[in-house]
Amino acid sequence: MAHKITSAANTLIKTLKSLHTKKGRSETGLFLAEGARLAREAADLGIWPDTLAFAASALDRPQVRDLVNAADARGVRCVETSEAILAAISKRDNPQTVIGAYRQNLASLESFDARLVIALEAVRDPGNLGTILRTADSIGADGVVLIGQACDPFAVEAVRASMGSIFAVRLARANFAELLAFKRASGAAMLGASLQGGALAPDWPVPANLILLMGNEQSGLPEDMEQACEQLARIPMRGRADSLNLAVATAVLAYDLWRRRGYEHARA
Amino acid sequence: MAHKITSAANTLIKTLKSLHTKKGRSETGLFLAEGARLAREAADLGIWPDTLAFAASALDRPQVRDLVNAADARGVRCVETSEAILAAISKRDNPQTVIGAYRQNLASLESFDARLVIALEAVRDPGNLGTILRTADSIGADGVVLIGQACDPFAVEAVRASMGSIFAVRLARANFAELLAFKRASGAAMLGASLQGGALAPDWPVPANLILLMGNEQSGLPEDMEQACEQLARIPMRGRADSLNLAVATAVLAYDLWRRRGYEHARA
Repeated sequence: MAHKITSAANTLIKTLKSLHTKKGRSETGLFLAEGARLAREAADLGIWPDTLAFAASALDRPQVRDLVNAADARGVRCVETSEAILAAISKRDNPQTVIGAYRQNLASLESFDARLVIALEAVRDPGNLGTILRTADSIGADGVVLIGQACDPFAVEAVRASMGSIFAVRLARANFAELLAFKRASGAAMLGASLQGGALAPDWPVPANLILLMGNEQSGLPEDMEQACEQLARIPMRGRADSLNLAVATAVLAYDLWRRRGYEHARA
Repeated sequence: MAHKITSAANTLIKTLKSLHTKKGRSETGLFLAEGARLAREAADLGIWPDTLAFAASALDRPQVRDLVNAADARGVRCVETSEAILAAISKRDNPQTVIGAYRQNLASLESFDARLVIALEAVRDPGNLGTILRTADSIGADGVVLIGQACDPFAVEAVRASMGSIFAVRLARANFAELLAFKRASGAAMLGASLQGGALAPDWPVPANLILLMGNEQSGLPEDMEQACEQLARIPMRGRADSLNLAVATAVLAYDLWRRRGYEHARA
């Protein structure tokens, strides 16, 4: 059953707090996901935390009690603690009353289907990355692949922005040569977002398998990556702004592609 | 000419630092915008700061020197200071070397054209709001109107996310009755984003004047607001996620509307 921890100096609590840092996440292979709803959704996908910390008060909610019992039955380390310690773990004044530490789980790119894969070159901002995972989930993309020096998808800001999609979307890391090998093997075409492209023609035929390749927040796509694309697309722009937020640009292109495929498999 | 300030205890520096808080912004009517590029773009739009703080090193760049000289000639208070003080003002370890304090400027809703107006009900997150301003700028929306208890568009996070669009996009506050009065006066239809709606039909005729009404991050649109809409639209969804990030959802709908209008006035 759950053990109780009341001291912030406890080693386990210190480990959970360390998951805010890249070092702490690397050393443990864990990351933090906050909230009972997220833990419930992850469990529904068959994903259980290494450690589940919760406030005693959270047990007043039957769904939390059920969750903790089910986690305990599966051998998850369940820890009852104070809201003050949960605040320290989450670095928030008003913490969620349930916080899980989950094993970081990356898929291999080879395991992806290639109907629509979103590839991000050196994405920098964890909030953007998390938001893109949420969008990828929403359109049923086959996965997201991180190329080059990406920010950490398991950073707390990324996990928060993903709103649970970190558990639902396949995520891989690869270098560009590996992406090209996957492209060849899957017969996918590649569409790069680029100012060098034009707007996609209304009747542009969407290839059966497609990689949507996005440059990063600062500098767009390197030239060699653009050259590897069958098609470059520039999002129409007007006004003073010269670019969109990366998560917005990714969503605008991904939704436009999905629309061209008749929003296949959309929920009724 | 510029005066030099070397003490973080200086009253003016304290005022600039206070602009991170709602109280500081309310008392002064000012907000912070960081970076020489932003200050240059604002100046190109005829918008000059109340105060322009910069590091001596920034004057090595001719465009910054020109900017400071032009600001000085217009009576802007120009302050040369240290990078440490700029870091304290921006609360960043690596601050921009130019920071402006600008007068908060809201437009009146009546001054808007109504070809496309984006109305946000009780938007909560300043990052989302800033990102939406950037998108509104990118599609040439006539303006953004904040309905109800919105977060502060002049919060540092909103201004940062807007990437300068805070200077370029008309922004108004209104209550819902005022929005309806504007709707009547301008002959605009209103399209509400809502789970109660269906996907917009491919041949849905976009009204000549249109208000795109978005609910907030937490709870979507209240029922009375939905009822005031001629049309409700649900963004197609698939997978586990039950909603998109608000800035993403706004962009997906706004781009879809602009596409249906043939991306009119897009840059070549």
